[in-house]
Amino acid sequence: MKRTLLGLLAGLLLVPAALGQPLRQSQIRPDTVDSKLFGEAVNVNVYLPAGYDAAGDRLYPVVYLLHGLYGTYVDWATAGHMKDVVDELVSSGEIVPMVIIMPNAGDPDIHNNWNGYFNMPGRPYEDFFFQELIPTLESRYKIKADKQHRAVMGLSMGGGGSAVYAQRHPDMFSSCYAMSGWLDNPEPRGDNTQDKFYIVSKAVHDHSALAFIDNADDATIEKLRTVKWFIDCGDDDGLMDLSVSLFQKMRARGLRSELRIRDGVHNWEYWHQALRLSLPFASRNFER
Amino acid sequence: MKRTLLGLLAGLLLVPAALGQPLRQSQIRPDTVDSKLFGEAVNVNVYLPAGYDAAGDRLYPVVYLLHGLYGTYVDWATAGHMKDVVDELVSSGEIVPMVIIMPNAGDPDIHNNWNGYFNMPGRPYEDFFFQELIPTLESRYKIKADKQHRAVMGLSMGGGGSAVYAQRHPDMFSSCYAMSGWLDNPEPRGDNTQDKFYIVSKAVHDHSALAFIDNADDATIEKLRTVKWFIDCGDDDGLMDLSVSLFQKMRARGLRSELRIRDGVHNWEYWHQALRLSLPFASRNFER
Amino acid sequence: MKRTLLGLLAGLLLVPAALGQPLRQSQIRPDTVDSKLFGEAVNVNVYLPAGYDAAGDRLYPVVYLLHGLYGTYVDWATAGHMKDVVDELVSSGEIVPMVIIMPNAGDPDIHNNWNGYFNMPGRPYEDFFFQELIPTLESRYKIKADKQHRAVMGLSMGGGGSAVYAQRHPDMFSSCYAMSGWLDNPEPRGDNTQDKFYIVSKAVHDHSALAFIDNADDATIEKLRTVKWFIDCGDDDGLMDLSVSLFQKMRARGLRSELRIRDGVHNWEYWHQALRLSLPFASRNFER
Amino acid sequence: MKRTLLGLLAGLLLVPAALGQPLRQSQIRPDTVDSKLFGEAVNVNVYLPAGYDAAGDRLYPVVYLLHGLYGTYVDWATAGHMKDVVDELVSSGEIVPMVIIMPNAGDPDIHNNWNGYFNMPGRPYEDFFFQELIPTLESRYKIKADKQHRAVMGLSMGGGGSAVYAQRHPDMFSSCYAMSGWLDNPEPRGDNTQDKFYIVSKAVHDHSALAFIDNADDATIEKLRTVKWFIDCGDDDGLMDLSVSLFQKMRARGLRSELRIRDGVHNWEYWHQALRLSLPFASRNFER
Repeated sequence: MKRTLLGLLAGLLLVPAALGQPLRQSQIRPDTVDSKLFGEAVNVNVYLPAGYDAAGDRLYPVVYLLHGLYGTYVDWATAGHMKDVVDELVSSGEIVPMVIIMPNAGDPDIHNNWNGYFNMPGRPYEDFFFQELIPTLESRYKIKADKQHRAVMGLSMGGGGSAVYAQRHPDMFSSCYAMSGWLDNPEPRGDNTQDKFYIVSKAVHDHSALAFIDNADDATIEKLRTVKWFIDCGDDDGLMDLSVSLFQKMRARGLRSELRIRDGVHNWEYWHQALRLSLPFASRNFER
Repeated sequence: MKRTLLGLLAGLLLVPAALGQPLRQSQIRPDTVDSKLFGEAVNVNVYLPAGYDAAGDRLYPVVYLLHGLYGTYVDWATAGHMKDVVDELVSSGEIVPMVIIMPNAGDPDIHNNWNGYFNMPGRPYEDFFFQELIPTLESRYKIKADKQHRAVMGLSMGGGGSAVYAQRHPDMFSSCYAMSGWLDNPEPRGDNTQDKFYIVSKAVHDHSALAFIDNADDATIEKLRTVKWFIDCGDDDGLMDLSVSLFQKMRARGLRSELRIRDGVHNWEYWHQALRLSLPFASRNFER
Repeated sequence: MKRTLLGLLAGLLLVPAALGQPLRQSQIRPDTVDSKLFGEAVNVNVYLPAGYDAAGDRLYPVVYLLHGLYGTYVDWATAGHMKDVVDELVSSGEIVPMVIIMPNAGDPDIHNNWNGYFNMPGRPYEDFFFQELIPTLESRYKIKADKQHRAVMGLSMGGGGSAVYAQRHPDMFSSCYAMSGWLDNPEPRGDNTQDKFYIVSKAVHDHSALAFIDNADDATIEKLRTVKWFIDCGDDDGLMDLSVSLFQKMRARGLRSELRIRDGVHNWEYWHQALRLSLPFASRNFER
Repeated sequence: MKRTLLGLLAGLLLVPAALGQPLRQSQIRPDTVDSKLFGEAVNVNVYLPAGYDAAGDRLYPVVYLLHGLYGTYVDWATAGHMKDVVDELVSSGEIVPMVIIMPNAGDPDIHNNWNGYFNMPGRPYEDFFFQELIPTLESRYKIKADKQHRAVMGLSMGGGGSAVYAQRHPDMFSSCYAMSGWLDNPEPRGDNTQDKFYIVSKAVHDHSALAFIDNADDATIEKLRTVKWFIDCGDDDGLMDLSVSLFQKMRARGLRSELRIRDGVHNWEYWHQALRLSLPFASRNFER
């Protein structure tokens, strides 16, 4: 059977296109959020699913996807190849179409530039996140702006940020997925308040996800039950014990969480694979 | 329990390093092979496993990992992130340490520059591969230069190249893994011998992996039994039917092959995941 | 730290129990449906999720899970260990709690006793299924009795049954998953209308899922678009080509389906694993 | 295209049979080992791979696969369906053909009958295992009787047995895989030496795998490096903390182990799935 050359080339494209359905591609759109708290604009990447532009008034659930220490808002797109994974999972129906927001909370120059998701002296990032970033973007994009359609997840420093955000704002998120989470830190020595690495380390110490559970009263624990939790870390990751500890502390308080220890270290290969667990987890915990 | 900040940072590294074992990192080394047949040097990336330099006379098995149409020898390193996958699989013992050779057989400028793994008028690539590339690199690097320690695999055009190389040189490879293979092509129309895309399309037609099985005599089929075969393609890949056909034709001749149709299309997400199947397949079919 | 022996034993139980939440176990309840069409009662196993009894007026979505040739309604419970898989997937939230109905359509004595899901001379099983079984059980149990909360799946003869039921009743099912489907059959020779194996073979021939697509007019194809399709078969299964053909024929008509060819043969190990794909597929295609 | 009915039935069998290769099925053979230490015969199931009988003098590697508390030597065959998994993995080449020995070390009547893998007053099981069981069966069957071709694995009580056997006899095993391991126990209260559950609990306390690492001198640790270790437990298993502890203690002594926390509880669904990890792990750590 002879087919035309054109036919073969068409075959190289996605089948939906071949079937004659106009393929409206997903995209990652760079955007900014003007922060009065910081006095500057903050960069953010926004993943919009295929069909977003044409979908009229349809609103989408939203995932906040947080990067790690030394990282920036572009990491999930470049090193994490998040678009390929999301597109595949949407196409096969494993996740619902969603908006994914990847805000900036770091810089490779860790000693001189800000990193971190917590309120730090001169950098109230958590305030920015909840008072400025979320309201701004959830009104700018077609997003279902409520707990039942909002999830948070992230890696390392962003895993810690995710866990603590969901601990302190359980009314805001339906689910939380912490990858290789930087969930606690020893109190850094000295008092080098000019060093940004000192500041972020101290902030992680001061906002420990482990201490949060230790110190939570029963009413707080009850609120945490309204969030679905997932903790995931590599067996050769130097931070693994923190993930196990968080799970054990939650279990001791009667809080259910999923825990996975998979093969791997503290790298993008691990986090790229984690998306195949974290996104379906968020998706099925959205209220449809 | 307080730990030092330094301890935490060490924890961020691989555990083997933390355990005090000097970590000799794997590397991807760019190299070239001077080709008399082409009258030019051909680029190649060579993955060398951790410990290669220090390992004295130890010889390694070798995988030839082939890129696709429009691609070049760097693709598996850059778009495919092969190093992360290989490092993880070696670390957990899922594959033996191996050398992986990624030769150049293409260029993004498909109409003006050469693409393809077959002998084409003015570009005898298959001759180059077996007469120049393999002998040169297997003497330059510490490689066990025999069938029982040599595998071939690749994607799309490189999946077709892999299949046909193993069909025509079954004495050279212990296993063959074709991902999303461009295994056959209709005869291209016209006779545009100046157009490189015409040339590669015609070469795929002339060296069809499907026709090879149709035309093989029993003695040839017997030789193919000495190779382990694996065919893998996405369910939404326009080339899927070619993979199924090759499997069915082989089965009809009594040749065993693994076949997998997984979720996905013709893209790097699929091939990146494929490495988790293809490398263990090659590894366990090496003679130790 | 010393723990009591009692504590260890408690630890051997499910964690939810340990957390003090009363564990209402799921169960498989044997039941019967009186058939006027057959003039006899038909056996059925009904999986009820944990919490079913206590859940008041809550209604559940429903899956019809069909056994194969030579089999009976108990197979999914005994050989298929379906309860273990369903319980785990519900517990981790990968599927919503659901009722699963496993009706009888066979007997190991294939030459003397009825097998099959189609209307056969003297055994109008399809009529029974849609006119008697579904209405009876969906009023007897707390089930959301509509297309958006009903799925059908099955293995081999039950894979064929599932596919054809969803083809002929697309208004009844939100999704269909065919495992190792007996989707077509050559016309059996002779005319041994006393032999039950002849009868079922002829019924599969007469109700071919492949021929259905070949013969479907455009209006019928449009209706099939309202069902989500999944076809799954082992690479060493003698029926694999039927699954591939159904997928290809659907694709040629512009109908999307998932296709998976996984490692395996025509056995319970394959179908047990298939539940990990099929149940989440049904679950996420239920309207919540 | 019409095919014969016979052709379809042949298709239902394994493809190798269809290809005309005589299929020599694997089997599970019940056997006994006469124990002088116990003064009785001990039951054992022995899995022999396809081709075992016809293979002449070919010797096979061996896995010792241990059952759990309340269990017996038949559990892996009946509840664990080990034959289906092993056959599939051998067929696809994921594991080498091997002999698998499943000895009896328990009884459902836990208070009146012996359970356990350790030397207990009146029941020196560990002595029996190494002095009688292994020598008897490794001379009776065609087994490569050396460390490099011998592995041990098991579930719960058998996971603890596996870990401690490999700790105390590192010269005997190339690898060890502990599933949901009962790796330690608090000292049972009282002194009910007539109660078999008291006895096994005390034996686990006295032969704690955790204490073994705590108490090991450096020379012992060095010997443990010659074994490959894998620890695997469900996130909702009441024994999970023991698995994590063993991993952490080993890591603290510079001993590498794989660790996986997967979704699941303390049940056969978990252990059935574990075979897909444990058997390839054993296989690739055999010297070929």
